[in-house]
Amino acid sequence: MKVNGRPYQTVWLDGSTVKLIEQRKLPHVFEVASYATHHETARAIQEMVVRGAGAIGAAAGYAMAQAALHAPEARFHDALDKAAGVIRATRPTAHDLFYAVDRVCRAASCANSVESARMAAVRAATALAQDNARACQAMGRAGLPLMTPGLRMLTHCNAGWLAFVDWGSALAPVYAAQEAGIEVFVYATETRPRSQGAKLTEWELAQADVPHQLIADTAAGSLFQRGEIGLVIVGADRIAANGDTANKIGTYTLAVLARRHNVPFYVAASRSTFDLATPDGSAIPIEQRSEDEVLYVWGRADDGSLQRVRIAGPDARALNPAFDVTPAELIRGFITDQGILPATPDAVAAYMREPEASPAA
Amino acid sequence: MKVNGRPYQTVWLDGSTVKLIEQRKLPHVFEVASYATHHETARAIQEMVVRGAGAIGAAAGYAMAQAALHAPEARFHDALDKAAGVIRATRPTAHDLFYAVDRVCRAASCANSVESARMAAVRAATALAQDNARACQAMGRAGLPLMTPGLRMLTHCNAGWLAFVDWGSALAPVYAAQEAGIEVFVYATETRPRSQGAKLTEWELAQADVPHQLIADTAAGSLFQRGEIGLVIVGADRIAANGDTANKIGTYTLAVLARRHNVPFYVAASRSTFDLATPDGSAIPIEQRSEDEVLYVWGRADDGSLQRVRIAGPDARALNPAFDVTPAELIRGFITDQGILPATPDAVAAYMREPEASPAA
Repeated sequence: MKVNGRPYQTVWLDGSTVKLIEQRKLPHVFEVASYATHHETARAIQEMVVRGAGAIGAAAGYAMAQAALHAPEARFHDALDKAAGVIRATRPTAHDLFYAVDRVCRAASCANSVESARMAAVRAATALAQDNARACQAMGRAGLPLMTPGLRMLTHCNAGWLAFVDWGSALAPVYAAQEAGIEVFVYATETRPRSQGAKLTEWELAQADVPHQLIADTAAGSLFQRGEIGLVIVGADRIAANGDTANKIGTYTLAVLARRHNVPFYVAASRSTFDLATPDGSAIPIEQRSEDEVLYVWGRADDGSLQRVRIAGPDARALNPAFDVTPAELIRGFITDQGILPATPDAVAAYMREPEASPAA
Repeated sequence: MKVNGRPYQTVWLDGSTVKLIEQRKLPHVFEVASYATHHETARAIQEMVVRGAGAIGAAAGYAMAQAALHAPEARFHDALDKAAGVIRATRPTAHDLFYAVDRVCRAASCANSVESARMAAVRAATALAQDNARACQAMGRAGLPLMTPGLRMLTHCNAGWLAFVDWGSALAPVYAAQEAGIEVFVYATETRPRSQGAKLTEWELAQADVPHQLIADTAAGSLFQRGEIGLVIVGADRIAANGDTANKIGTYTLAVLARRHNVPFYVAASRSTFDLATPDGSAIPIEQRSEDEVLYVWGRADDGSLQRVRIAGPDARALNPAFDVTPAELIRGFITDQGILPATPDAVAAYMREPEASPAA
């Protein structure tokens, strides 16, 4: 996708340096951050310089590639295992992270010399990122039939290209519609506590000239009531074998509202987000994040500086689960690189048995 | 209720000066603002120095009393009519506002001299405020049977004493429980865009030593799912004859979640919030407020100053309905000064036929 007219991906490898669009400063400052080691990249994932299922996966893959490039020849595989542990510990809910670490580890462990293992790790990480971009583009094609002219749809958090390497998941059909000349309107929820809808989705849609409007999370119900929403598409952080889906906190509420108002609710996700080893939603670990995310808000002050302001009183305590689980029964379907699937265990299992859409490293 | 151990009401009349707790600076600064004329008081209502059904009503009543005190003898009733128009134009949704203006107007128009009309207006406004405080205390007693030991309840926005003259509506049963030695735990939603839950409810509950925790609006669904919420009580800005209830944006969503999880959902309100002239929710005007409430957040910066920060990008547009309507069928009952009523047209009509609980001026 383009930023100020120039093409960008969210994350890439430049030599042994990982480069990321610094998402915590958007929409106020557009900046590319550089990380020289897998430790630095892991910290950037943990601190949410990069976030979103696919972008976390790609960054984690590149971090493993960094580890492979820097690991001492004598203790190469030990060092790689240790790096995998560091990277896996950054974010517990996102399945893409674990998928990426495993895929790069596997590629490196199959090589018959340290030098070829380093190269295999870089190739695997790069292929993973490009597969992710291609899969998102395929999701866009798969979701295109849902994009009827004049549609007003709702999305939550950011599952656009900033959450992936390119194209995005939930917003991929919107971009596909735009290429096809079909105009749809997107309502973006703010998505407190980190306000990714206000900060990222709004910015991303503005960059792409997609008509859109921001709402407070509290206003979604009122839009459903007034018949203003014809479709909901959200992303996912992990999809269990039975179709239960963990995604950004607040997703479940939107699914409940959509059901009450008979509005179709879709989840867009790439293969790496499906986790057959997790039988259902109750087995998905839910990351609890800092209370400060609820108690403070970051933004641009009137003097132009980026600042946080504390909303609540000095002794206030908050509860901050980062994700919730939407049961499969509330999901009309999964928009995937292989088409739209029903949210059933059989459909998920069949999809995961198919060969990957694009050549894997 | 007490602030730093000293008893306060939210709004009062001191001579011909209206005094209000400045609610836009809470929880960071506790300050009492003074308004010399009804024009100033009307502006304070419009700019939400004071907010909440009962507190708006009391402030509007006192503003009318100010108008009566200052109106020239020659054009007394014209001046009073004009003042009523100014005050009515401040907030379109809150029924308490219209009720208060009418009640003070009526009291003034029955007097047989201008001097006695001025006194009648002051007496009516004062009686209205004190009736409001007494009605809230009665709501607390009415809701007490719902306050089982160990209960974890959810409330939205601020319908505590800051929203009234004293005691509050939705939180009145909590304070009654506290006096009765029953400990309940309150989850307060932030309530974007103005974050009254984070700013006011949290502060109010902290002042009263009620155990509580703040959540982002997006986290409510997840708490319902985990069985963490046993009861919901919210306030109301206007209740139609059929029981449909306008309240702060986001209330409808909580009612839908409560229904899905079989959690009882109650609305606490005083008589002045019921509006028999409005047949159902579709006839309640919904105030649309400035986009800036969504695009910016106010709070305390790290240097201690009160500042706003812009969350969204420079060209972002937002939609900001201030209220939504919860259909009567989702409401288990109304907690009133006369006990708990079912949310049916008959029960509402019967309640409104009864004489007022406390002597009116």
